[in-house]
Amino acid sequence: MEGVAALRAKALAAKEASKRLARLSTEVKNKALRNLADRLLERQGEVLSANQQDLVEAKASGMAEAMLDRLLLNPERLSDIARGVLEVAALPDPVGEIFDMRTLPNGLQVGRKRVPLGVIGTIYESRPNVTVDISALCLKSGNAVILRGGREAVHSNGALALIIREAIAEVGLPEGAVQFVEQTERGLVEEMLKLRDLIDLIVPRGGEGLVRMVKEKATMPVVAGGVGVCHTYVDRSANLDKAVAIAYNAKVQRPTVCNALDSLLVHREIAEQFLPLMAQEWAKAGVEMHADERAFKILSPIPGLNVIPAEEADWGREFLSLRAAIRVVDSLDEALAHIERYGSGHSEAIITEDYSAGMRFLNEVDAACVYVNASTRFTDGGQFGLGAEVGISTQKFHARGPMGLRELTSYKWIILGSGQVRP
Amino acid sequence: MEGVAALRAKALAAKEASKRLARLSTEVKNKALRNLADRLLERQGEVLSANQQDLVEAKASGMAEAMLDRLLLNPERLSDIARGVLEVAALPDPVGEIFDMRTLPNGLQVGRKRVPLGVIGTIYESRPNVTVDISALCLKSGNAVILRGGREAVHSNGALALIIREAIAEVGLPEGAVQFVEQTERGLVEEMLKLRDLIDLIVPRGGEGLVRMVKEKATMPVVAGGVGVCHTYVDRSANLDKAVAIAYNAKVQRPTVCNALDSLLVHREIAEQFLPLMAQEWAKAGVEMHADERAFKILSPIPGLNVIPAEEADWGREFLSLRAAIRVVDSLDEALAHIERYGSGHSEAIITEDYSAGMRFLNEVDAACVYVNASTRFTDGGQFGLGAEVGISTQKFHARGPMGLRELTSYKWIILGSGQVRP
Repeated sequence: MEGVAALRAKALAAKEASKRLARLSTEVKNKALRNLADRLLERQGEVLSANQQDLVEAKASGMAEAMLDRLLLNPERLSDIARGVLEVAALPDPVGEIFDMRTLPNGLQVGRKRVPLGVIGTIYESRPNVTVDISALCLKSGNAVILRGGREAVHSNGALALIIREAIAEVGLPEGAVQFVEQTERGLVEEMLKLRDLIDLIVPRGGEGLVRMVKEKATMPVVAGGVGVCHTYVDRSANLDKAVAIAYNAKVQRPTVCNALDSLLVHREIAEQFLPLMAQEWAKAGVEMHADERAFKILSPIPGLNVIPAEEADWGREFLSLRAAIRVVDSLDEALAHIERYGSGHSEAIITEDYSAGMRFLNEVDAACVYVNASTRFTDGGQFGLGAEVGISTQKFHARGPMGLRELTSYKWIILGSGQVRP
Repeated sequence: MEGVAALRAKALAAKEASKRLARLSTEVKNKALRNLADRLLERQGEVLSANQQDLVEAKASGMAEAMLDRLLLNPERLSDIARGVLEVAALPDPVGEIFDMRTLPNGLQVGRKRVPLGVIGTIYESRPNVTVDISALCLKSGNAVILRGGREAVHSNGALALIIREAIAEVGLPEGAVQFVEQTERGLVEEMLKLRDLIDLIVPRGGEGLVRMVKEKATMPVVAGGVGVCHTYVDRSANLDKAVAIAYNAKVQRPTVCNALDSLLVHREIAEQFLPLMAQEWAKAGVEMHADERAFKILSPIPGLNVIPAEEADWGREFLSLRAAIRVVDSLDEALAHIERYGSGHSEAIITEDYSAGMRFLNEVDAACVYVNASTRFTDGGQFGLGAEVGISTQKFHARGPMGLRELTSYKWIILGSGQVRP
């Protein structure tokens, strides 16, 4: 157990370590990550028994089955985690990249050089893999990290953090680079959010309540995703086979995540033809459809569907489950207005064969990711080729959409002169 | 006079306007800027008489001569301001730039497209030219702007804002894109800093007190410069002629600005040779030197210099005047440690002919701008080739160093598919 002073001491140690980390070569950082992957497998006994302790306590407290499953570690999951670390080691190092470099008329060579942000604080819930994933991403990008996981996973996270600290110290990285905050009272989170002088960025990972609280209380920059209310608009010119396949994938492939489809908008000219095809596919997967008046009129006569009338609260609702709202719209303009009003700026798609409609949608929708003819489920650092992601940002400042290693960096201007003075 | 409700209405109007602004072509934005430049010249009578009113009130309130000069507008200054607007019109438009675009193995074409941030709020003091400069930069980058200038320039700023609004409306831009907050009570600034849902970024321009207050109270992102405590380190291997010329320029060319030299660090091996040369040049310009013990020993016997012993408070002090602190250091390491401890992360320079010393300085100094063999006075958007600047950021998040048009933007991911679904 620890208090505010101990928390501050950890943050100070992280700040100190971050200065050394910033100057480490890619080679050394990768060696540390590879060693970490090895140690995670060698020392899995420690992790699994700590995890067992968490599971026993969680069961005793009456945790729901789905949550217990999120908490569970086993040899297979641990080897996935270790493989994830190796994947981060294999990614290009963003630090040291020199860009926009050019020679000015006066001979000054001016450019920008990528540097780490410094100390990343992360506040997360449940899944213990976050402890390792975020640490690996921070270390690779030259940042120190302060980990504050949830109460329910405190033993698992503690065991993992110890292995991380020891594994990186073995190859000469400063142990202070990874700090684990054991105490799990909410008060300490608020203290952490006050350490503006020591923590450069806070990344919350968890439910809407956690993210909102962090955004409100943090005194330093926060990058957070929060809610993903994702629309797929099927335009009158859509290829209906593609439209069914894409909307099916967007809703069904993994319904519990932020980039899954929440609302389907359908142009009235194709609604009678398209909606039955779509609904029959969705019905096979068990999707509950909340249909507006026009969609309900089309779908309710069809046997075997799970259709109910939509209510106002269904628009702009993140379902995170096998439910979808359906609305028939009169035009692309109406679809755009609906998305502007109810969207959360995460991922939005149009299905169309009409060039101009696609271009208008791309230009006019204000969201982190805007799609033409593809599933919103692709919104993901790995899928976009960033290798791994820290999270998905729905804000515009600093980083938007999937955040990879580069988004954990800043830059400094470097200026190479030969005696220039300003006239 | 207006209250909180009126302020909110203005911010709402700006938000609405920002949606149209975001989609305007470069051509239309440039036409608006050129029209603004014309109207500023045509309607200079209005501006000058409003400025006269501010000057009369300022004199009556006992404003100091230097401040009165900052407040003064005349035909020459107005034509400089108009020329500045034309220069912004001539800059490349950052909005719409598509970057990192590539085709993934599954055929998805994924990239990022630059978009405006939305609504920029700016809180500034004294110089009325900021009203026009910031408006031009915001409009060019597709952002709406809310202007809140100081009480002392309220008539001048009001006249300028009216001309801006009318000039852009004449060519079809939404008048709501430029909002001017007339009331100058501090309370209203605090209300403005609460409008997180309507203002996307706050840019304070003014003294340290203003910047600190805005950083503390703002609920939205802030980009601010604040203090520039700039060091120039003369290494033992420095070319002494270059060193004298650079440090002279850094201190004397414009001593009242943030990128001017505050502390001179000199390697002990060259101190006895270099310091007298430097001090004699500085003395000609009237520089007061605050010397540490070793520097004082070298300089105090020389007649005609203005040298006093430095005190602890001189290290890390932003002089903003013809004063400089001087310290003799034993090594590059000591110089680096001094800069780490006392620097403000603005602009730092090394003067050296030693390749390794230059590289170490570039790599290890953590500041917005790090120089080898050049004057820190170059830290400026115009000098770096950005065309114009909104300010100089000493923070790491989003933008660091001189902020040009690009730094007033975000991006969205655009994804062009042909029916892809996630496996």
